[in-house]
Formats: sequence, C-alpha cells, structure tokens
Amino acid sequence: MSVFQKLGIQKIFFNQKDKRLASNIKLIVGRKPLNLPLYRLALTPAGLGDQNAEGVAISNERLEFLGDAVLGSIVADYLYIKYPYRNEGFLTETRAKIVNRETLHQVGLKIGLRNIFSEELEGRSIVQGKSLYGDMLEALIGAIYLDRGYSFCKSYILERLLIHIDVEEAIRTTVNYKSKIIEWSQKEGKTVEFKLLNVSGNQRFKEFTVSLEIDQEEISQGKGPNKKKAEQDACENGCKVLDIEL
Amino acid sequence: MSVFQKLGIQKIFFNQKDKRLASNIKLIVGRKPLNLPLYRLALTPAGLGDQNAEGVAISNERLEFLGDAVLGSIVADYLYIKYPYRNEGFLTETRAKIVNRETLHQVGLKIGLRNIFSEELEGRSIVQGKSLYGDMLEALIGAIYLDRGYSFCKSYILERLLIHIDVEEAIRTTVNYKSKIIEWSQKEGKTVEFKLLNVSGNQRFKEFTVSLEIDQEEISQGKGPNKKKAEQDACENGCKVLDIEL
Repeated sequence: MSVFQKLGIQKIFFNQKDKRLASNIKLIVGRKPLNLPLYRLALTPAGLGDQNAEGVAISNERLEFLGDAVLGSIVADYLYIKYPYRNEGFLTETRAKIVNRETLHQVGLKIGLRNIFSEELEGRSIVQGKSLYGDMLEALIGAIYLDRGYSFCKSYILERLLIHIDVEEAIRTTVNYKSKIIEWSQKEGKTVEFKLLNVSGNQRFKEFTVSLEIDQEEISQGKGPNKKKAEQDACENGCKVLDIEL
Repeated sequence: MSVFQKLGIQKIFFNQKDKRLASNIKLIVGRKPLNLPLYRLALTPAGLGDQNAEGVAISNERLEFLGDAVLGSIVADYLYIKYPYRNEGFLTETRAKIVNRETLHQVGLKIGLRNIFSEELEGRSIVQGKSLYGDMLEALIGAIYLDRGYSFCKSYILERLLIHIDVEEAIRTTVNYKSKIIEWSQKEGKTVEFKLLNVSGNQRFKEFTVSLEIDQEEISQGKGPNKKKAEQDACENGCKVLDIEL
C-alpha cells in the first residue's frame, strides 16, 4: 500500500463516479477503499465485455478465484474453532453448505450488491446468471483481502457476512438418507441390505449402481461415483418409495 | 496467545521429549513453537489410535482440513500476484497441480517430516498411507496458522515450501490433448470433429461419451462428467492411437 493511499490523497483525484463508488464500498465493507480500482474490478462480471489496452478481457473472475480461496480458509478457521469436538468430515460438509453459490448469492443480495452494481452498470445491460451476486461477493472478498489484508478480511466475513447465514440451520438440514432408512427398518423389524449391481466407466471416472433391499425385496436403486454415494442415492429414492418422513 | 507463551516460560516445564520436538519444529518451521501441543497434534495421523479422556480419537485430520484451506488461499494469492495476465482457469489448474497430495508428500519428505515423525512414534508402528507426509504437512500448516497467524504462515509457505516445487515445470506438464489433436490435424490437412454418442446418469451425476473423428473416420472415444472432459479424454486416447508426440 503506498503512502499516497494511506494518506487518502487519492480522493483528490476522484471524479463523481469514483466518489459514489467509494462511499458505497464504505457502506458495504465498513472502511473506505484504499485501492478503489480493485473494488471496481470486483463489480465487473465477465459478461460486461470490457477489454484493457492489450485486448485482454477485464472481469472479476480472477478476483473471484482469490476470494473463493480466502473465504474457504476463513470459514475453515471459524468452524475449526467453533466446533472443537467435530471431525473433519463434519467440518468439510458444513463449510460446503455455508459457502455454496446459492447461499452467497442470497448474502450478496442482502448486503446490497444489487444496488451498488446497478449504479456501476450505468444503463448497460447484462445477462444475469443464477449466481451473479454470489460470484461478485467472492470477488469482493478477494478485493478486500488484497486491499486490507487477511485479518481485516476475516473480521469482515465474520461480522458482516456470516451473520446473514444461519449456520446451525444449515447443519440441521443435512439429511442422511441412509440412517433414515436404517432407523425406519429397525423400528419396523425389517432387514436392510445393499447390493452392488454394476460398476461402469474407466479408471478416472466410475459409476456405481446399487440396489436397496428391505426384507430381501428391492425397494429402489441409486447411482454415484462411489459406493457410499450410490447407497445414499438409493436411500433417498427409497425414502420416497416408503414415504418415510425426513 | 498467552503472556506465558510469549515470554517462553512454558519451556521451564518441558520434559526431554517436549524439548526435542520443540527444537525439531524450530528447525523445520524457522521459529520456536509457541503452542507445542498443536504441533504434536499435527504429527499424529489418524491410524495412531490415541484417544482423549472423552474417548474421542485424537488425530491431525481436523488440522489437515484447516491447513488445506489455508494453503489453498496462500497459493491462490501467490498465483494471483505472480501471473497478472492469466485467467482464473489457468490459476485454478495451476494451483491444483501444486497442492496435490503427491507433491505435498514429496515436499513433506524433503523438509524432513519423516525424521521428526519417527522420533514422535517412539517405536510404535503405523500403516503408512501413500500421502502420509502430505497430510502431515497440511496439518503442520494448520498448526503454524493457529500458532503464528496467517502472515507468518504465508512467509513460511512461500519461503520454505514453494521453493521445493518447480511451478514453471508443473505448468508446462499440463498436456492439453485436444489442442495437440487440432494442431496435428491442421498440419496434416485433416478435419476434426467430435460427436456426442451418449449421455447417461441422473441429474446429479452424468456421463458423456463422445467420439473423435478425423476426416470422418472415428479414431477414439472418451468419457467424462461433461462434454469438455469427455473430449479431452477422447483426444488423450486419440493421441495414443495416432502416435502423436506430446
């Protein structure tokens, strides 16, 4: 960070548009931007089609890559500390539920990315992808990381983003279909068996097909890249067939 | 971090074993550990089978989860800065090549994890997985992150781990089979065509089968979870059939 930026002298050269963006960023991030172009880049989705002088497309995709990684690390840290007695499988699964595109898209909308982006668009139009604001939020995290460092970025994510996500609720909504089937069968006094029906594919890409049998009767089938996932899939189908409450 | 740890007073209570581990860690990490038990945990693979007082298995798997995330973020940062003109696809691919288990395992061996681990084992034996030291290195990164913070962890990774990895070489070894096929065909004056033969699977798990046709003659087939990957697979097979130099 240059002395120039630290003293905030760059503001002198801000035009009207820069000033508006800087104050919007301050509202969303909580601090004024030191490196304003980074934030502008974060608000530039690939579809906008601008190019730099060398003809390279300018978009937030590189920042999105960075922000995604930083977010993954910070959420990992958060979950590691929050759940000292849960194993790494739980941590991995919970993180995937928190940082998926759909959730981030919703958080992006909540913190007001739509408004600040529409001002940036200045009348241009763009094909809105399903996770436009999720991608943009990741890019924004990348920009904040580069602009203010990891530690500020961590406080930002914990204090301003995670509060929009109901982590406990996300954890509860995991449905383990297999345990549902086993639970139900034990209550009904029936036996549960999985049979491997088929394995197809090459060494890099396999598909397992298994059947779920209850009291020796085939209830459903499932497919997946490994036996465990195929069984889960079969049990999900089985829950529907048997009308088991989830 | 407690004042206690900052002053290094904990050393007074170190037994012989603790002292040995602390000096080993100092050799590998470059600074003495503030929180020694963290590092001991990092050196405890799942197979060792110790349990804590509550009967929960003690292993480095949680630290591995954390270290993996932190490493991903730091390498993302490194590549983002190092390659300002490469797109996010290149960055993602390059990172995957750098932080895969096999590479980390080799780096773990190079920095001497085998020696320090065998001292920790104290004669106990363990079934050595293929990436024992890769997993351990990730766990060590997690421990360093918790013990010394992100910024120290970043210097550690850049100065003491990445120097063991030939990033340029890793990038070069990506073989884009499809471009090899297209290049070859242009030189030979032949046409290249891909035909989608089959799509199987359910909505969560698809398998595409495509054929590679050169001058209307089928050369090879390929499979993959999407068309692009299936084409790459077909081209990899095609390169073998046509004996194209890679």
